[in-house]
Amino acid sequence: MPGNAKTLTDQDAQKANAQWGGRFAGGPAAIMQDINASIGFDKALWRQDIAGSKAHAAMLAKTGIISDADARAITEGLEQIGREIAAGTFEFSTALEDIHMNIEARLSDRIGEAGKRLHTARSRNDQVATDFRLWVRDAIDGLDRQAASLMRALARRAAEHAATPMPGFTHLQTAQPVTFGHHLMAYVEMLARDRGRLADARRRLNESPLGSAALAGTSFPIDRDMTAHALGFDRPTANSLDAVSDRDFALEYLSALSIMAVHLSRLAEEIVIWCSAPFSFIRLSDAFTTGSSIMPQKRNPDAAELVRAKGGRITGALVGLLTVMKGLPLAYAKDMQEDKEPVFAATDAAALSLAAMDGMIRDLSVNAEQMRAYAGSGFSTATDLADWLVRVLKVPFRTAHHVTGRLVGRAEAKGVGLADLTLEDMQAEEPGITADIFTVLDVDSSIASRTSHGGTAAKNVRAQAARWLDTLGTGESGT
Amino acid sequence: MPGNAKTLTDQDAQKANAQWGGRFAGGPAAIMQDINASIGFDKALWRQDIAGSKAHAAMLAKTGIISDADARAITEGLEQIGREIAAGTFEFSTALEDIHMNIEARLSDRIGEAGKRLHTARSRNDQVATDFRLWVRDAIDGLDRQAASLMRALARRAAEHAATPMPGFTHLQTAQPVTFGHHLMAYVEMLARDRGRLADARRRLNESPLGSAALAGTSFPIDRDMTAHALGFDRPTANSLDAVSDRDFALEYLSALSIMAVHLSRLAEEIVIWCSAPFSFIRLSDAFTTGSSIMPQKRNPDAAELVRAKGGRITGALVGLLTVMKGLPLAYAKDMQEDKEPVFAATDAAALSLAAMDGMIRDLSVNAEQMRAYAGSGFSTATDLADWLVRVLKVPFRTAHHVTGRLVGRAEAKGVGLADLTLEDMQAEEPGITADIFTVLDVDSSIASRTSHGGTAAKNVRAQAARWLDTLGTGESGT
Amino acid sequence: MPGNAKTLTDQDAQKANAQWGGRFAGGPAAIMQDINASIGFDKALWRQDIAGSKAHAAMLAKTGIISDADARAITEGLEQIGREIAAGTFEFSTALEDIHMNIEARLSDRIGEAGKRLHTARSRNDQVATDFRLWVRDAIDGLDRQAASLMRALARRAAEHAATPMPGFTHLQTAQPVTFGHHLMAYVEMLARDRGRLADARRRLNESPLGSAALAGTSFPIDRDMTAHALGFDRPTANSLDAVSDRDFALEYLSALSIMAVHLSRLAEEIVIWCSAPFSFIRLSDAFTTGSSIMPQKRNPDAAELVRAKGGRITGALVGLLTVMKGLPLAYAKDMQEDKEPVFAATDAAALSLAAMDGMIRDLSVNAEQMRAYAGSGFSTATDLADWLVRVLKVPFRTAHHVTGRLVGRAEAKGVGLADLTLEDMQAEEPGITADIFTVLDVDSSIASRTSHGGTAAKNVRAQAARWLDTLGTGESGT
Amino acid sequence: MPGNAKTLTDQDAQKANAQWGGRFAGGPAAIMQDINASIGFDKALWRQDIAGSKAHAAMLAKTGIISDADARAITEGLEQIGREIAAGTFEFSTALEDIHMNIEARLSDRIGEAGKRLHTARSRNDQVATDFRLWVRDAIDGLDRQAASLMRALARRAAEHAATPMPGFTHLQTAQPVTFGHHLMAYVEMLARDRGRLADARRRLNESPLGSAALAGTSFPIDRDMTAHALGFDRPTANSLDAVSDRDFALEYLSALSIMAVHLSRLAEEIVIWCSAPFSFIRLSDAFTTGSSIMPQKRNPDAAELVRAKGGRITGALVGLLTVMKGLPLAYAKDMQEDKEPVFAATDAAALSLAAMDGMIRDLSVNAEQMRAYAGSGFSTATDLADWLVRVLKVPFRTAHHVTGRLVGRAEAKGVGLADLTLEDMQAEEPGITADIFTVLDVDSSIASRTSHGGTAAKNVRAQAARWLDTLGTGESGT
Repeated sequence: MPGNAKTLTDQDAQKANAQWGGRFAGGPAAIMQDINASIGFDKALWRQDIAGSKAHAAMLAKTGIISDADARAITEGLEQIGREIAAGTFEFSTALEDIHMNIEARLSDRIGEAGKRLHTARSRNDQVATDFRLWVRDAIDGLDRQAASLMRALARRAAEHAATPMPGFTHLQTAQPVTFGHHLMAYVEMLARDRGRLADARRRLNESPLGSAALAGTSFPIDRDMTAHALGFDRPTANSLDAVSDRDFALEYLSALSIMAVHLSRLAEEIVIWCSAPFSFIRLSDAFTTGSSIMPQKRNPDAAELVRAKGGRITGALVGLLTVMKGLPLAYAKDMQEDKEPVFAATDAAALSLAAMDGMIRDLSVNAEQMRAYAGSGFSTATDLADWLVRVLKVPFRTAHHVTGRLVGRAEAKGVGLADLTLEDMQAEEPGITADIFTVLDVDSSIASRTSHGGTAAKNVRAQAARWLDTLGTGESGT
Repeated sequence: MPGNAKTLTDQDAQKANAQWGGRFAGGPAAIMQDINASIGFDKALWRQDIAGSKAHAAMLAKTGIISDADARAITEGLEQIGREIAAGTFEFSTALEDIHMNIEARLSDRIGEAGKRLHTARSRNDQVATDFRLWVRDAIDGLDRQAASLMRALARRAAEHAATPMPGFTHLQTAQPVTFGHHLMAYVEMLARDRGRLADARRRLNESPLGSAALAGTSFPIDRDMTAHALGFDRPTANSLDAVSDRDFALEYLSALSIMAVHLSRLAEEIVIWCSAPFSFIRLSDAFTTGSSIMPQKRNPDAAELVRAKGGRITGALVGLLTVMKGLPLAYAKDMQEDKEPVFAATDAAALSLAAMDGMIRDLSVNAEQMRAYAGSGFSTATDLADWLVRVLKVPFRTAHHVTGRLVGRAEAKGVGLADLTLEDMQAEEPGITADIFTVLDVDSSIASRTSHGGTAAKNVRAQAARWLDTLGTGESGT
Repeated sequence: MPGNAKTLTDQDAQKANAQWGGRFAGGPAAIMQDINASIGFDKALWRQDIAGSKAHAAMLAKTGIISDADARAITEGLEQIGREIAAGTFEFSTALEDIHMNIEARLSDRIGEAGKRLHTARSRNDQVATDFRLWVRDAIDGLDRQAASLMRALARRAAEHAATPMPGFTHLQTAQPVTFGHHLMAYVEMLARDRGRLADARRRLNESPLGSAALAGTSFPIDRDMTAHALGFDRPTANSLDAVSDRDFALEYLSALSIMAVHLSRLAEEIVIWCSAPFSFIRLSDAFTTGSSIMPQKRNPDAAELVRAKGGRITGALVGLLTVMKGLPLAYAKDMQEDKEPVFAATDAAALSLAAMDGMIRDLSVNAEQMRAYAGSGFSTATDLADWLVRVLKVPFRTAHHVTGRLVGRAEAKGVGLADLTLEDMQAEEPGITADIFTVLDVDSSIASRTSHGGTAAKNVRAQAARWLDTLGTGESGT
Repeated sequence: MPGNAKTLTDQDAQKANAQWGGRFAGGPAAIMQDINASIGFDKALWRQDIAGSKAHAAMLAKTGIISDADARAITEGLEQIGREIAAGTFEFSTALEDIHMNIEARLSDRIGEAGKRLHTARSRNDQVATDFRLWVRDAIDGLDRQAASLMRALARRAAEHAATPMPGFTHLQTAQPVTFGHHLMAYVEMLARDRGRLADARRRLNESPLGSAALAGTSFPIDRDMTAHALGFDRPTANSLDAVSDRDFALEYLSALSIMAVHLSRLAEEIVIWCSAPFSFIRLSDAFTTGSSIMPQKRNPDAAELVRAKGGRITGALVGLLTVMKGLPLAYAKDMQEDKEPVFAATDAAALSLAAMDGMIRDLSVNAEQMRAYAGSGFSTATDLADWLVRVLKVPFRTAHHVTGRLVGRAEAKGVGLADLTLEDMQAEEPGITADIFTVLDVDSSIASRTSHGGTAAKNVRAQAARWLDTLGTGESGT
């Protein structure tokens, strides 16, 4: 537990003072450092911070605000620091509070005066906004690739099982036969929307806050288009107050992850249920199950359970940041430092979930006999029967529904399926029924008949899977 | 408090049975009706339900599934029912559970057999998904218009106050002078992103689930493109299982509202603070304040406080639905009936918040003298001083920062502002300083100098406001 | 959609002005009334408001602040108003904003001057805090009775099924045999904790804010103990600022409901799974299932699904109010008006959930054969085998675990259960095994052996159920 | 970003296999290890895990399940491991998945066979439940001490400022004068309730799950009372299924922290506002403010802002876990592994918040003149005037309210305070007013008159502070 008074060494205090300017007589209390320092987590931004500073220095030189020589020294210094961090030899200091101060202080240590010119015409407020946008943009790109890979895995398994019957459930009750491929393709659609949301979020975040300075812009003749371009942004942000106060990009990103996590949690729940002994629809290999410390026979679908749970955690991250941001006056407030941990944690959770789901989809083996058996039981073709009455006998649908209900009752009472009723049984409820009705009561006929756009007929599923696989490509050159 | 056993009348029970088909021997218990019936809230969908049914009937006739005469009877019947509901004369029945059953039962009462043919080739699952998408689409359009109106109000006030100095805060501490217009324009940017999110959500939801039937599609030769087109959808959904299981559109909509509500809560917080006696930056008229039952002198900014609070409620609605959807197996589950109340409540909250904020922005009067006074105090031009040292004396920024810190300390000790220090005071810290420095230490110079892209200089603000007002138009023909 | 400008009638505006005092020249805008008025939902507090006002009037008379005659007139007037509201003849006015104003205005209409004295030495701030605490206290009492009833239902079914084997799951994988009674008793323990939380919340809320006035207390010689006592509070609150700013009681109540709702959602999920065709562990009667509009054979466990979903909604209500209250300066802020709808909605959801679950538990019929079959499959007694190795052969547990794992592998390879292995099979892995081992490998022996405190042995379950039924009583005189 | 395939070394895979038993032919995939391993965070439970294992071993020996010699070896081994972990020399292995496996594997490495006997008659399911309860119990005790310390700090400052006037706000509008001491004491009341909630949560969690084994109890003759007693629990849990499935204690703990965090966020918001230039009610020293990288004059109340923000994060943690637990079937599911990170993060946030707030309350200096000035402005004694009319002239309160409203209007029009109106002004609105009225219109009289129970009169505040300081003691021997 944190919270115990610690003694800051004088040296630490001096370092901190050195950054904050000459006015602070005493050093910050240890508790202040504990609560205030963000270096523990924001060092994750180091690549983005260095990239942003390099772009800034190049612009300062181009516009004549600093000399070319200083810009070169800064660039080389930053690159060297980058190598140190990558190599694990950089010493992070809590007294220097955050990644920005840590890097800048080290830069001044290394290159002297030039380092002290880097922060001209910017502020930590626009700097952190820039770094964090870059980080989130990278995360979006990574998750997008993972989601595409999962879609590919789903579509491949769907193509393989385009004609494998399974019971389609509503309320977890057998409703109508569908194919396992059709079921998997539903998740392809969901993930496609998830990627759409990520792409929209990326497009909206892709404006550069750099040059907004503390909150009001700057009087230096900076070129914000140049830094925006260098960092891959589409344009600079339009209002400096907004640029340093806004965390929409993080909120929108977390929203998109929350919805995606809901999708993954649904598939995860299904995997858990399908792996249960009574269902036994699928089996996961040892690679995706674990044993028990006390029950050696267990094959626990831990990965699926964790994916299911991580949906909750991601929602928690979103709520955390929405609540942090609610009611904050402009412009920057320190509350906004609490933006990073939820985003980092949610990104981890999402990346793990996608990877684990990708693995499970590729791994799972299907018990087609069991699925087919349940697809055909539970009067699953009752709708086909009702539809036959409508189509052939021109019975109004609601009436057909009632007749079918009575036939189901009759079959239930006899302990048989609908297809096992005799024609006499049928005619007792509706005299117009002919033997033709038995052609629609088996699983394969039922599935084959669902040819409406988006329906479960195998040819639909095959086409849908093929279209997606074509769109997705092999993923080898990125997609 | 609900939960007490009620006795369903036999007639109610029969009505319910009549809809569910002939198999149910006993009637549902009263508690079952209490928890199950959604008519109490889903009657809000009546317009959408009628529109969807009309489109469905027209398609059934076009494809020969029902006769033209039946389709005409259905259409006329539905229009008559629409008039009854609009007039308040329609009798909603809880035993009929939901808006779909209420309308269909009434239709059959009115037009007989034809009414019983309406539900051919569809299910409540695709029907409710269609209705709810249409409702959310309408809500998006309404909120978008309101947001545009608020942007217009903000931009007009911003143009009016493009040169009115106010203290720019970070951490609610005076940081640098900005203009009130610049501050208001920050919210225009936020709302523009909010509208972008709503537009993206609208685009993504605008696919028609109708014809997905219960979950598997249908064997009737339906034309889903035709119903999609008739209802203003861009296309039919691609996977029937997904179409009836998906509530992404509601989640994405609530996410967009949550982020917008964060923005409005921030402005609301500022209004509350600005109206406080010590700030007195603005004043709201009687129209947007209330009095007190015990303190007759109060002018409470209730509307702003309520806008601030509604952000919390909207987050609650989002969390509620995310949690409901988490881990649900496909396809439809009754849990999904809990989707409507959060969406309705959040829509109300958002619409009220936008309307109230629009009114307050138009209503508020500005205390420009008070704002200017605070804009000039608190050493707010210290950054200008530091920047002068960098620009004119070529002092490295970090060094300039330290020198400025010492000058602030000196001014603080003397109890004066930076501009009140003597040149000797200045030179004691940095001998190179000349009298020219005093040209950057007043509020208006500071503001005028911030001409970087997005900076607070009045000419920037004027241009930004004009550009937005041009884009937004007058709003008279719909934005 | 709200938000359209409405015209307040002059009369409405005057009524509103009349309550707020003479200073307001103009009337509040229609949007202001739309967002500000709470009468639409806070009329639910009418009983509590009348009770509070009666207690206040009696105290004012007792302390000589008003005359006995005035107090009598007030009391009679309030009682008459109560009868009007109960009878549905009271006309609520939105212009009068809330339940407090509506009742007080009607009182003054009826009894004149005396009515205008009622609000002496109090404020709406302490009045609404008092009313709302009383409402939440009543809700706690109601839910506590419902939870006790559900515990009773669970314990009765548990006693009935104390020896009915079912597969105990972890990860939804068969782990060890347990009894269905033992499983149900787990929920009795959870609900007992829920009631404990509600009782603690009740105890903590049971202090009277009445007499805190607007925020500072009052100079009138009031007797807060007297009103506290009259309203069933344990004591008056200790700090007037806290008393009008605090909504802890609502937050704690919503927290307790959220946790209870998690419990109910877990049982609901189990019911949904148990009702699925592959599980078929239980069956719900027609009273707790519904049919389908398109699939006449369905028996959907809608009530269980709705209970599962309502957990999400209750979490949303809690989040909403936590977020509303976060960061509010003292004392009363209008944001706090957003406290009631989440509490009302969550109470409804909780009451419905408890009632529905109570009904389902009493209703469900058990498929004991199916449960027993699964309890005995999946190598569910592997732990018993390992424990036998430890107990009889003194093999270290980890080693026993490994031996058992190999035996499970052997059985799996042969496609048989552990009890179907031959002694030779057994001895091939561990030569010390004797035929005695077969005495621990059947379901009933396994269950009977789990006699540790809290274990699943039938005699434990019977005793646990009996103890709870004794504690709970018949519920007829309240419990 | 995680999610890239890693290669598990064969040795790692073998280690993992070694723990899970002999059945697993292949090793778990690297992604499986990434998502599954919890050692990265659950090593925080090491003290609790060792304590639990020691208690278990002692019990196993006492009941004759293992030998005394084995128990001694286990105890010494565990203590040695504890020293290694404390010294930082213990090597944690991800392949061993969690803290329990890491410690047990190391124990077997050290002491051989005896180590393999430790897990007799228990499971990871009851083990982790026990460890985590112990951890949460410790955290409660730590936070309770911190909360007591903060209450002490508040009460001391309140005693010091029992008579310091400040404006009491509602809606952040000046309402009535209160004292700063009274305001601080409101938070003492809130924290007292927070401690009450923590104490209730502690009492409810203080039952031992140990001996529930995997889910069904055990056939070994264990003594659960003995282990419960040894670990400071009040009793063993009553139902083994519940004991391993329940995370109520974590949810209730997070609920209590969420409510406490709301309190702290409110005080934090006030500190931020009070430190703003226009308010200037208080000043924080350098120890609790930070500077700016670009604006050297800033004194940012970062610690207060972070406390305000952490309330949002804690709500996020609660939501995360509520959502994870929703709808989980009994008994243990891997989802429940996601319980620890939210609890750890929320504990950190709460501990930091309490420590920082404690420091700020002790640190802050009060600008009493500024507070008094605002306490006396804004017609803050209007209620006193109205009350005088009621008390002295026997005017009904509502009428007095109207008269006062007109007098405020008159004063406002003249640009003066109420006390600056002439007697003639007064009598123009209400002829009965006498010069005596001026005795109630100043700040000190107003405060002094509020002597009702809980009112703001200085003597009340002094007594309230003294009573609390007496109750709290010096904190030196623990409180």
